[in-house]
Amino acid sequence: MGNDRLFLLRAVQIAWNGILNGGGPFGAVIIRNGKIISEAFNRVILNNDPTAHAEILAIRQAASVMQSHELGDCTLYSSCEPCPMCLGAIYWAGIKKVVYASDRNDAEGAGFSDKLIYKEIMLNPSDRKISFLYLTDAGGKEVFRKWDELENKISY
Amino acid sequence: MGNDRLFLLRAVQIAWNGILNGGGPFGAVIIRNGKIISEAFNRVILNNDPTAHAEILAIRQAASVMQSHELGDCTLYSSCEPCPMCLGAIYWAGIKKVVYASDRNDAEGAGFSDKLIYKEIMLNPSDRKISFLYLTDAGGKEVFRKWDELENKISY
Repeated sequence: MGNDRLFLLRAVQIAWNGILNGGGPFGAVIIRNGKIISEAFNRVILNNDPTAHAEILAIRQAASVMQSHELGDCTLYSSCEPCPMCLGAIYWAGIKKVVYASDRNDAEGAGFSDKLIYKEIMLNPSDRKISFLYLTDAGGKEVFRKWDELENKISY
Repeated sequence: MGNDRLFLLRAVQIAWNGILNGGGPFGAVIIRNGKIISEAFNRVILNNDPTAHAEILAIRQAASVMQSHELGDCTLYSSCEPCPMCLGAIYWAGIKKVVYASDRNDAEGAGFSDKLIYKEIMLNPSDRKISFLYLTDAGGKEVFRKWDELENKISY
């Protein structure tokens, strides 16, 4: 718990750095073998990139450092509970542990849509605010069939 | 529906390009005012980047083209139903419509974790396969309080 708190305080400090540097109020740090391998604050506005959340940037940077899409031996510390986008990225990266210092309710209170997106993602696609249209006759399944047949593919 | 099908066929074609070029079997295209402004296939393995899904790459590229994190007047066409990470990115980008050609069940059949992640995201953090630890005394809420006070911030 001692180190968890220490690294989490660093993530919160990075969030402060975000505010001081024109970024968003979110910070993330990724730890491997007790050492920081990446850290980032939210740069959505700075980079004109809606995906540039602190966790996404930290994951991309850590994967670059590790030269691997797999971060199974890493822990992510985030100033706020990851939003659904970042949560998805955490699962895809195989990260096993996440520690955070505020939650989706706090983010909502500050004007961010995390809680709304959590609600939307649980609905059937046809019930969401965004229009979702599933066309089953455009050959989508065939791509996966071909993928299944490939012998030298890397699964993840 | 005619144009939807046409652009969706293009997204599926991009997925084929992915397979042919060492990428993953997913393709995405973003349309604005009836024209393609970005397209991408999955490059997770190629780029050593767990976030490099077709939709994420297409959104980042479109935002770069538009010089804005806001893609409210864009439609996204994807060879497969977006995973939770990409769905989150779609909401953050403000995209209003998504058209897709296969779903999370097809992705699962081809060995991808989309369906598992959809299930996990709906659980309380403490019930998930990944360990989630919420430390409430690391100053996470104070960052948002400061953010609230800022006068020149850009909300999104």
